[in-house]
Parts: sequence; C-alpha cells; structure tokens
Amino acid sequence: MSPTAAYAELLAKLKRAHLLHTVNGILGWDEQVNLPPDSADLRAEQLAVVTELEHAAAGDPRIGELLDELESRQADLSPDERVVVKVARRDYDRVVKLPPEFVKERARQGSLSYHAWASCRERSDFAGFAPFLQKQLDLARKEAAYLGYDAAPYDYMIDRHDPGMTAGAVEALFAELKKGLVPLVRAIAASPVEAHAERLRGFPEALQRTLLSEVTERIGFNYRRGRMDVSLHPFCEGSGADIRMTTRFDEDRPLDALFSAIHETGHGMYEQGMPLALQGTPLGEAVGMGVHESQSRFWENQVARSRGFWRCFEPRLRELFPEQLRTVSSEQLYLAINAVKPTLIRMDADEVTYNLHIILRFELEKRLFAGSLAVADLPAAWNAAAKELLGLTPPDDRHGVLQDVHWACGMFGYFPSYCLGNMIASQLWEKVRGEVPGLEEDFARGDFSRLLGWLRRNIHEQGRRYDTQELVKVVTGAPLTPQPLLRYLRERYGALYLR
Amino acid sequence: MSPTAAYAELLAKLKRAHLLHTVNGILGWDEQVNLPPDSADLRAEQLAVVTELEHAAAGDPRIGELLDELESRQADLSPDERVVVKVARRDYDRVVKLPPEFVKERARQGSLSYHAWASCRERSDFAGFAPFLQKQLDLARKEAAYLGYDAAPYDYMIDRHDPGMTAGAVEALFAELKKGLVPLVRAIAASPVEAHAERLRGFPEALQRTLLSEVTERIGFNYRRGRMDVSLHPFCEGSGADIRMTTRFDEDRPLDALFSAIHETGHGMYEQGMPLALQGTPLGEAVGMGVHESQSRFWENQVARSRGFWRCFEPRLRELFPEQLRTVSSEQLYLAINAVKPTLIRMDADEVTYNLHIILRFELEKRLFAGSLAVADLPAAWNAAAKELLGLTPPDDRHGVLQDVHWACGMFGYFPSYCLGNMIASQLWEKVRGEVPGLEEDFARGDFSRLLGWLRRNIHEQGRRYDTQELVKVVTGAPLTPQPLLRYLRERYGALYLR
Repeated sequence: MSPTAAYAELLAKLKRAHLLHTVNGILGWDEQVNLPPDSADLRAEQLAVVTELEHAAAGDPRIGELLDELESRQADLSPDERVVVKVARRDYDRVVKLPPEFVKERARQGSLSYHAWASCRERSDFAGFAPFLQKQLDLARKEAAYLGYDAAPYDYMIDRHDPGMTAGAVEALFAELKKGLVPLVRAIAASPVEAHAERLRGFPEALQRTLLSEVTERIGFNYRRGRMDVSLHPFCEGSGADIRMTTRFDEDRPLDALFSAIHETGHGMYEQGMPLALQGTPLGEAVGMGVHESQSRFWENQVARSRGFWRCFEPRLRELFPEQLRTVSSEQLYLAINAVKPTLIRMDADEVTYNLHIILRFELEKRLFAGSLAVADLPAAWNAAAKELLGLTPPDDRHGVLQDVHWACGMFGYFPSYCLGNMIASQLWEKVRGEVPGLEEDFARGDFSRLLGWLRRNIHEQGRRYDTQELVKVVTGAPLTPQPLLRYLRERYGALYLR
Repeated sequence: MSPTAAYAELLAKLKRAHLLHTVNGILGWDEQVNLPPDSADLRAEQLAVVTELEHAAAGDPRIGELLDELESRQADLSPDERVVVKVARRDYDRVVKLPPEFVKERARQGSLSYHAWASCRERSDFAGFAPFLQKQLDLARKEAAYLGYDAAPYDYMIDRHDPGMTAGAVEALFAELKKGLVPLVRAIAASPVEAHAERLRGFPEALQRTLLSEVTERIGFNYRRGRMDVSLHPFCEGSGADIRMTTRFDEDRPLDALFSAIHETGHGMYEQGMPLALQGTPLGEAVGMGVHESQSRFWENQVARSRGFWRCFEPRLRELFPEQLRTVSSEQLYLAINAVKPTLIRMDADEVTYNLHIILRFELEKRLFAGSLAVADLPAAWNAAAKELLGLTPPDDRHGVLQDVHWACGMFGYFPSYCLGNMIASQLWEKVRGEVPGLEEDFARGDFSRLLGWLRRNIHEQGRRYDTQELVKVVTGAPLTPQPLLRYLRERYGALYLR
C-alpha cells in the first residue's frame, strides 16, 4: 500500500469517528436546549448507543494498521502528515487501551453520579454524594492505570485536558500566580472605589438578544455556520461546520447574558477558524481545554472589558436601553463591567478573583489524587481554603464543595484549564499588542478583523500541531508564565480601583 | 437457546436499530428547524453515517438467526410475540434483500435529485428535472425487483407505505370515491354561499402561538414528551418518547398555523398512544402512512372543523383577537374554517377537493410504473388531469407537476396514503359516533378524553398487529370503503353550501 493511499484511508477513518462525535454533540446540545422534560430516558439511550459507535470507530483496528504502516514510512510523509500521524497515534492508543466494559461502566456511573450530585446539591447533602465521588475517583485512577499513569494519575488528568502539561508544571505556575494575585485582590477589596452592577435593572430579554447578536456577529462569529440559543448554563458545542452556542437571560443582569455570549463566541470562533477541510483530523481540532479557554477568555475579558470596545458599543447600548441607563454615567457603566468582588460561587466570579477559585480546586484535586485528602474530609478542606483564598466561608456545602458539576462527571483535571486559559490569553494579549499596534482603536471603530486574523494565523490554524506549552512558546517566543496575566490585571484593575 | 432468551435478544436488537432511527429523526428535525444555512454539507454526512449504521443494525444477521429460531418454536410464543416475529421477519427480509451499495446509491441520488427539484421548481424547468425523475423511477423499479415485485413494482410502492394494500385495491377505492366526489365539488362550486377566509388578517404570531399551544394541549398532546416548533413545511417526527412537531405562522392566515398544528398533533398523539415499553418493536410502531394520516386528518377535520369544537374555542379566539374578529360573525368564522375552493396547489387545498389532488397523482404514478406514460409526457398529462378533476389549468409546471417534493425523493406510492387516511378517518368517525354518543357535546365542553381513549384502545395500542385494511375491518366491522368519507363530506359541506 502506498503511503498516499494509507494516509487517505486514515483520514477517512478519523473523519468517520469525528462525524459520530458531532452527532453526539448535536444530541447533547439538543438535550440542554430543546429536550422535553420527560424525554431524558430516551436521550440517555441515544447518547449511549452513539457513544459506543464512536468509541468503536475511533478504536477501529484498521486505524492501528494504517498508523503502523505510516510510521514505518515517515520519510515519505510531509510535515503536516507527520503531525497527523503522531497525534492520531496518541488518540488511538488511548482509545484502545480502555476496555469497552470500562467505557460503558464509566458512562453508567457518570450518569448515576450526575443525578446524585444534582439532588444532593439541592439539599446541600455532601454525605449523600460522597460515595459517588469516591467511585468517580476510583474510576479515574483506574483509567489512569490503563493508560500507564499508575504512578501519577493526576498527571494524566491534567494531560488529557491540556496535552503535554503536568501537575507539577501547573503547580509551579499557580504558586507564582497566587503570590501576585492575593495582594492585588486585597488591595482592590480595600479600595474606596465601588462598582454598582446592581443598578442595571429591567433590560427586556428581546432587546438583550438584539444587542448580543449584533456584538457577537461584529466581533467575527459566522452565523451562517452556527447559532445562539438559551440554556441553563451557557456552553458552546460543535465543530467549525456547525457551532451551537448558548447563553441565558436575566432582565436584571444584562451583563451576564452579554459576557456569557461573548465568551462562548470566543470558543466558537476558535472552532470556526480551523480549516473546514481538515475537520475531524488533528489539524482541524483544538489543542486542548486551556487553549480553548484562552480564546473564550480573550474575547470576554481582554477585548470586551476594554475601554475601546465600549467606545464602540456604549452608544448602541444606550440607544437600546435609554431609560435603564439614564442615571448611569459612562464611568459607572465601565466600572460595573469591571466589577471586582469576591464571591463563594465560581460561576459568578469576576476575572480577578476567578483564578483563586481555580487554585482552590486544583490544590484539593492534587491532594485527593495523592491520597493525602480523604473524600470525607473534603468539605472542611474546601471551607478552609475558601476562607484563606477568598476570605469567605460557605454557609453550606451547596455554596461550597457541591457547587460545581465537574467532579460528579469525573472531570478531574479540568478546572486548571480555566486558569491556564487566562494566563495564555494574557500572554497572547501582550504579544499581539506588540505586533499589531492600535488594536483598541480598531475596537473603538468596531473593527476586530486585524485581531481575529492574528488569532486565526497564530492559534486557530495550528490545530493540534503543538502541545499547549509548545504553542505558547512558538507564538509568543516565551514559555507559559503567569506574569502577563498579573500585569494585565494590575494594569486594568489598578487603573480603576487603585488610582 | 430458550424461546424466551431468543425473544429478549430479538427485542434488544430491534430496539437498537430503532434507537439509531430516532437519532436520524432528531438530525432530520434539527435540519429543518435549527440548521444554520451553510451547515447542510455536514448534516448530509451525519445523516449518511447514521443511516448506514441503522441499516446495518436492522440487517444484523443475528436478527435472522433469532427469527429462524423463533419461527421454529411458534407454539411456545404468545400471540403478541407471534405478531412481533411475523412483522420483524417482513422488515428484516426487506432490509437484507437490498444490497448496501444500492442503499447508498439511492441515498446519494435522492440528495442530488432533491436539490435538482428545488432549483428546477424555482425556475419551472421540468426538462431540467426530467433526467433526475427518470433515475428515481429506475431506482424504484430496481428496489421493487430486489424485493420480488418485478412484475408489479407499483404494488410494492403502495405496500411499503400501507402494508397489505395493492394498487388494484386503491384503484377501486379511488374510482368509487371519484364518482361521488366530483358532483359534490361541482355543486359546492355552483353554490351562492361563499366563505371569506381572507377577512382574517393581522393575527400576531405570539398570540397565535398561545392559542395553538392551548388547543393542542387540550385535545390531548403530552408536552412533557414533545414540543412544537416552526419550519417551512409543517411535519411531525419522532416516537412517543419524544415527539417533535412543527407548524408555520402567517399573520394573515391564522387558520393555516392552527390547523397545521392540530394535524401534526394528530400524528403526535398516535405515536404517544403506543406503549412506551414496546417502542422500537412492531407493537409500538404505526401500521403505515394511511393509518397515520387517518389520525392527523381525524383531529384536523372531523374534530377541529366541527361546530362542537368551535363552541369550545371560539370564545377564546375572540378573547385573544377581539379587534381582528370584530366584524366577523360566528357563522362567517365557521364558514371560513370550512371554506371549499378548488386550487392548483395540493398543500393549500380544502378537505373536499384535497382528495382530487391525490387521485390525480395516483393515476399518473400508476401509468408511470405501468410504462404507459413517459416522463417527458408527464407535464401534459398532469395539466389535462388538473383540468378534468379540478377545473383548473396550471400556468406553469411550478404550479403543476413540479409542486411536490415526493417524487424527487423517490417517494412513489406515498400520495395515496393521504386519501386513504381521509377514508379511514371518516369510517372511524361513523364508528365512534355510534359507540360513544354525544362526542360533539364533549368537544363543546373542551373534553376530548372519551374520543382519545377510544382511538388509543382501537388504533394506537394495536401497533402493527394488523395491516391497514385488516385494522379497519377489525375496528369498524366493515371493509375499508369511501362511502363514510362521502357521507361525512356531504353532511358537513352540504349543510353549509347546499342548503
């Protein structure tokens, strides 16, 4: 078989598995956006059968044969082809090392655990949830062992979300970040300047929709290959050929819908920025969660909380909501957009204190996997860390250790990606501002094309060519570090709160 | 292997194929309701891969082995189990007799032909569409031959939509219907009484939505296992566990949205009336298209065009639209609901002349399959038949032979089901009125439970236990005949137009 034929057959096999993945994606999106309340049983069965078929397609033994063949003919491959073979091998080995019965058991337990979490959270009942969490931890350790990470299961948890990253690397980055962040948060808390986001009330949903459609289209989302709907928790699903994003509306929290939408649009534009013809192959897929979050955070924070951005959109905002903003000055509006206030709930956190929520979770996950923290002791450890990092003590576990869904679904090692995303976004922000001067003036004119073009060339079009840290180094010329994030936060929030 | 074990394994296999069918259904629904305009290419690939997997699951050789086993142990099976084995055998044999390459080619041609039809229809270009239609006819004949219908391909086309029915049986029914229907249409056309549906203008969409949600829920649709959305052409998709219906809104045609919604609700309630636990097995599936249409037509026409129904809903209609109905009397409203006027377009036809549209298509399909009509001569034959049956001549092929999508998709033999559905609905209407006196008084009180209960027991819960004609005979005690439809139309429309 010629390498060309083998390569073509490999791509076809990868795309077939990817297609089933996108079918799963539509079913998942529909579940959160459209599913009638009593139809969840059918949807669970549909997801199970498609997941099983996707797993079989991704672990098709023919992929292994083709990879063997292509690896023995490296010299005949182009650099792009070598990237595809290398990454496909990594994926394939992970898929086939997991026994189908394990994959089935993991899915079944995930579903049980999710429902247990939802009802225990409602009742603030950690003891009820603990056995499920223990089971999730056991399954995660088992999975790590199947994949050769017996000795360092948490490294696997990190790596599967951010390829190439280790728990040790994250620990060093977070320690450095924490050192700079805690004093900044204290200084802001002590500032006499106060934001009043609660003054923004009575923004009709229909007009909020108009605004966020205009904003997200203007920054560059292609609505001919995507849409925006409503769900309980905002998310973004799909590949560049069909992106489904969601947001949620509250008439008294207009900034929540808008910034959620811009965040998801950042995810969506990353997927849309990858070449359509390569979708389903490693050159048309995202690096990992950290880089994905860097794109959503970049647009949500670096761009949409800037003064330039609001020079463009404030007039339109006031046109749509003249009465609601009559007594709110421009400076008050901008301060509300950049409000900083420690909160117990991660999902309500501002972009400064958000990182402390992540550090808290990372430290607890690390100890859980090291065996130095037992599940039963988790609530106390959580509350102590919340007091230390945020200066707040949860009144109950619902506002503490039970607040997030991730652990219930076995998504250990996922939280760090949020904070890595913030670091990467800031490091890209410093770089692009150096290379493309006058960006904020672009924003003020409503022109986001130079910025989006730069992100496309440097991040989106790279696909999975590089691992997380390699990509940051290639694009910015420096290793990943929290210093740009600290500089960015000090610059933006120092100017507002510490003047 | 015990018959019990074999039967359980058979059910699991059938349900697996059915699950993939429902996944296809969600993808198809989403395509018409949500799909971003440029994402059709991805959706076509998703549908192709799921269809292929569904075909493989339905043709799993293990199903054949289990059927062999169970057929050799008939005596050990319950009557229900025998029904399942008999129908599953029929389905299985049809699936495995079609070579996978043929199934793929049919899907590919169907897609090409659909797009050719859409653009040729736009330009009224029958010559451009003719080669695609010829190809569809050739494929349909080939399919019939694979299934042993070489000598009577049109019988197969009819049978696959309405099991047990033949072209000859349909021909006899339609001839009898036509004989009674043509004079009735002529008499109504000559009547001095005139309906004025065009007076109903300016009904805001949001209020139309309110009305049709209330009406469809009141007649018995379970919205906890289904929903109503908007699409270009109304349709109903899904099984009882999750029904997706659509309608369409026009502020100046409020009756169109409402009656489309009631029609689809009739389909939806049929699916919801089958036992959930048996879904995916022959006892939890619809008989065929004729019976399905009998349910939608029943609610749309026999029920929702009755005086009792409007005694219930007219007050609410006037409450929602007081201004729009200020100058419209109750009698004028009821006449608008029961307007009769021949039209060139089937989808705009009233329930009297609608049947003539179907007879026209049936006669042409029959001649196409008999070889006595060439594709090239179809437009002239269409126009002659339209003149004869409807008294109208299409100004162009867009308003004639190119108006419907069915032939472009190879759906020959489908049209007759619409008219069979009307006949069955009327035959059921006579029966249920005899068995359950006072139904219209129920409607007037907004109580549809006795009617729905009767349909559930007699039709829905039968699943595929009987073929189309058998079911009619079992339920009504008489063979399927067009006389009840003629009596119903004469009674309802005679009272309005021929008094």
